[in-house]
Amino acid sequence: MPMPSLAIDMDDTIADTHKKLKEFIYRDFGEVIDDEKLLKGDSSLKEILGPEKYGAYRSYLFQPGFFRDIEIFPNAIQVIEKLNKKFEVFLVSSATEFPYSLKDKIDWANENFPFIHWQQICLCGSKSLVQTDYMIDDRSMNFRTFRGKPYLYTAYHNLHETGFERFDNWEEVAEKFL
Amino acid sequence: MPMPSLAIDMDDTIADTHKKLKEFIYRDFGEVIDDEKLLKGDSSLKEILGPEKYGAYRSYLFQPGFFRDIEIFPNAIQVIEKLNKKFEVFLVSSATEFPYSLKDKIDWANENFPFIHWQQICLCGSKSLVQTDYMIDDRSMNFRTFRGKPYLYTAYHNLHETGFERFDNWEEVAEKFL
Repeated sequence: MPMPSLAIDMDDTIADTHKKLKEFIYRDFGEVIDDEKLLKGDSSLKEILGPEKYGAYRSYLFQPGFFRDIEIFPNAIQVIEKLNKKFEVFLVSSATEFPYSLKDKIDWANENFPFIHWQQICLCGSKSLVQTDYMIDDRSMNFRTFRGKPYLYTAYHNLHETGFERFDNWEEVAEKFL
Repeated sequence: MPMPSLAIDMDDTIADTHKKLKEFIYRDFGEVIDDEKLLKGDSSLKEILGPEKYGAYRSYLFQPGFFRDIEIFPNAIQVIEKLNKKFEVFLVSSATEFPYSLKDKIDWANENFPFIHWQQICLCGSKSLVQTDYMIDDRSMNFRTFRGKPYLYTAYHNLHETGFERFDNWEEVAEKFL
C-alpha cells in the first residue's frame, strides 16, 4: 500500500524566514518590526513597514544567498526525518518568483535534510496544482483548492485565522502524525 | 467557472533538449547518436552511449547554462500562448535533481513565454504530487499516479509505447485543445 503523502511548506513552516527578514530590516534601518501589529491581522507587513522598508524587504528575497542559510525551527529536522519513514514527504515551496532562491533552497534542503531525495522537493509557483493527502503550511491561501487535509502552521500573520487545525510547533506535528 | 488546468512538461515536450544533448555529445566525442536505436525501446540512452559518454551526458545536465537556451519545438510558443487563454496552464519540469538548471529554466521561460506568470511555473522532483485536469509529457512514468487525462508527447524514447493518446507536434496539440 502506498504511504500517505504529506506536503510541507518551507518558509515560516520549517524555516524561520520571518526572523531573517526582521534581522535584515534591523541591520539596514535600525528598526525592530513589531510582530504584535501583525497579530491583529488587519495590518499587513507592507503597511507596517511602509513603502521604503517594504521595498528593501522585497529586494532581500531576490538576493542570491538569502535563502541559503535560513534557520530551522526547533525539532523540525528530527520530526521530518521520522515523518519521512511513515509518509511520502514533499518539501514544497512557492519559490519561482525568486530565481536566485531556487538553488539556495535546494542546497539548504540538501544540507539540512540529507534524508530528503531531490524527487521530494518541489519549487513551485501557485500551489494549486499540488495535491497530497496532507499539507502543512503557514499560508491558508494555499489551501483554497487543496483537496487533502490542511494544517496551518502558526505564524504571526495567521494568528487571527480560524477554521483550520493548526500546529504551533514541531512537537505538535509529531504528536499528530507520529 | 474555473478554467481547466493543463500541466505541460518542458524538456522534450516544449524544449528540444535531446537535440542539445546530441550536439554536446558530437562536440565532445565526434559521435552522432543514432536515434533509431532508441526507437526499439529496449536500448536506453545509457546503453547506446556506453559508460564514458553517458557520464558526460549526465554532467551536461549539472552545468550552469545548459538549460538556459534550449531550442523550442516549432509552434510551441504560439500554441501555448493561445492555450493560456483557455486553460490554467502550468509549465512543470522535473528539475530539482539539477540545481543549476532551476534559474536557467526560469530565465528561459521568462524569455520565451513572457505571458506565463511565475505562479504558473513548477520545478519539481517527482511529478506524483502534481494533479491537473490534463498533462502533456514525453515520459509516461509521470502519468503513473496522475488522475487527470494524460497525453504523451512523442519522443524517440517513447515511440514504442501504447495506451496513451499522443501528440507528434504542437499543431496536433492545437487541434485537440483549441
